Amino acid sequence: MATLVSPDHVSYDDDAQALKKAIGGWGTDEKAIVSVLGHRTAAQRKQIKQAFWDRYQEDLIKRLESELTGDFEKAVYRWMLDADDRDAVLANVAMRKSLDYHVIVEFSSVYSADELLNVRKAYHARYKKSLEEDLATNASGNARKLLVGLATAYRYEGTEINAALAKKEADILHDAVKDSESHGEEFIRIVTTRSKTQLLATFNAYRQLYGNSITKALQTDPADEFKTLLRTAIRGLTEPYKYYEKILRNAIQKRGTDEDALTRVIVTRAEKDLKHIKEEYYKRNSVSLSQAVAKETSGDYKSFLLALLGDEK
Amino acid sequence: MATLVSPDHVSYDDDAQALKKAIGGWGTDEKAIVSVLGHRTAAQRKQIKQAFWDRYQEDLIKRLESELTGDFEKAVYRWMLDADDRDAVLANVAMRKSLDYHVIVEFSSVYSADELLNVRKAYHARYKKSLEEDLATNASGNARKLLVGLATAYRYEGTEINAALAKKEADILHDAVKDSESHGEEFIRIVTTRSKTQLLATFNAYRQLYGNSITKALQTDPADEFKTLLRTAIRGLTEPYKYYEKILRNAIQKRGTDEDALTRVIVTRAEKDLKHIKEEYYKRNSVSLSQAVAKETSGDYKSFLLALLGDEK
Repeated sequence: MATLVSPDHVSYDDDAQALKKAIGGWGTDEKAIVSVLGHRTAAQRKQIKQAFWDRYQEDLIKRLESELTGDFEKAVYRWMLDADDRDAVLANVAMRKSLDYHVIVEFSSVYSADELLNVRKAYHARYKKSLEEDLATNASGNARKLLVGLATAYRYEGTEINAALAKKEADILHDAVKDSESHGEEFIRIVTTRSKTQLLATFNAYRQLYGNSITKALQTDPADEFKTLLRTAIRGLTEPYKYYEKILRNAIQKRGTDEDALTRVIVTRAEKDLKHIKEEYYKRNSVSLSQAVAKETSGDYKSFLLALLGDEK
Repeated sequence: MATLVSPDHVSYDDDAQALKKAIGGWGTDEKAIVSVLGHRTAAQRKQIKQAFWDRYQEDLIKRLESELTGDFEKAVYRWMLDADDRDAVLANVAMRKSLDYHVIVEFSSVYSADELLNVRKAYHARYKKSLEEDLATNASGNARKLLVGLATAYRYEGTEINAALAKKEADILHDAVKDSESHGEEFIRIVTTRSKTQLLATFNAYRQLYGNSITKALQTDPADEFKTLLRTAIRGLTEPYKYYEKILRNAIQKRGTDEDALTRVIVTRAEKDLKHIKEEYYKRNSVSLSQAVAKETSGDYKSFLLALLGDEK
């Protein structure tokens, strides 16, 4: 469930005028920006962009970028992109700047088949090439195979479970955990092609047969990029709320705070399942996510995140 | 361009009655079946199935299967399936019966990104699992990587060409042709992820740099499954009409005729580009495809194929 609080009926033209006023004069009225954009759905934001263009012949996103700064600017910019386009941008930035593939593993494993496909389409539109071709060019070895496999999957989404297959593949995974050099391909095959429901059954069979969770078993070597990406994929595929909770926890606990991760999760999930993620966070940390965010952030950035979290006061 | 000749306006109920009459009495009136179904578009056939159900509470496809026999039955059955579903069936049969992956390489390389995706969706619907998971389970080694990569691609379809990249990757392909064991992965990466336009540029660069076409260079060892599949992929990706012409030529020249291949190409292309394929066939063989088909087939099967070819008389 979403945390975003938005009115049912909105005058897009009024919003466009309010935003123009907020960014048009001496100095910028960030509070006004939060009070409008922090309370509009994706569909409404799209209409507001259009209304802004119709009235002022100006690109609202570009205006916001030039008027705002720092983490607040970044957060507003990401918020204003269409969801699919936003993920395409995050993926491309990850490949160009840091070769940190976790963001790509994240959407490739958490998203539904159609959501993932839409990100691939947005990537075409923005970068004039495919996500998989950039992944295949930038990454190498087992990491490449895993990344391309995850990003190109169009998984079956039925609820059928084949219990015999789950046991058989739990055995294969067990061999692969011990020796990912020679069994890595089988690991990749299973994780990138099976349905999420079937994978859950396989990982449960693994725990029953070997007395340990597969993600624990993969924890042995934190410097092993392939295993680290695999763990991210498995957590994203099977327990997305817990996965996001951990990303937020790490971002908040990090010395200096990881604003990029914090912004990403809140912006991408505020209209989807951030309520569940907040519950998960409270269960794990005995402090509410909004309190934790309020403590670690400040100013307009803080107000904006709290608005998206549905906890403004 | 299509070869199928169909009326603009059709009474689906009249068609359903004509078909009922053709299959309902003593013996079957195959000519009547050809004269109706051999002249109806996919959308019209769908409506006729529905009209047949509405009037007789019977599944038209099942009735046809039980009344017809041999190659004619097979051809009519394939013709009556929705296009995406038909390819899903062909892929599944190929994996279950023969482990002959060329049919899968065919649609994975010839089809547009969305056409291929629709086959994957149809596969989900019919088999309750994904095409890629069956491919990954059945195939192995480089063939598996190639097949899964081809079937899961969602290629960029713009017309941009990067000439420097084309040269660079032509060099990589040249190394891979010489030693596909150690360079196979790079071959697969390029063929499965680049856009068709870019691949064409790369293969042209290959010919310029090395004085030989890449498909010729791959011809060395006909027993090498990986290289054979690669050649099929490259031809399907870059010259689909010539690719289909060759499939038809081989099917017709084969001692005893390869009816499965003949049926497949005519049924799957009759509403798309069979006219171009016919032109290609005539250019290459100095005899028309319909004459060649008429010579090698007989009876109702022959009449049906000629109807789909638009050359009945």
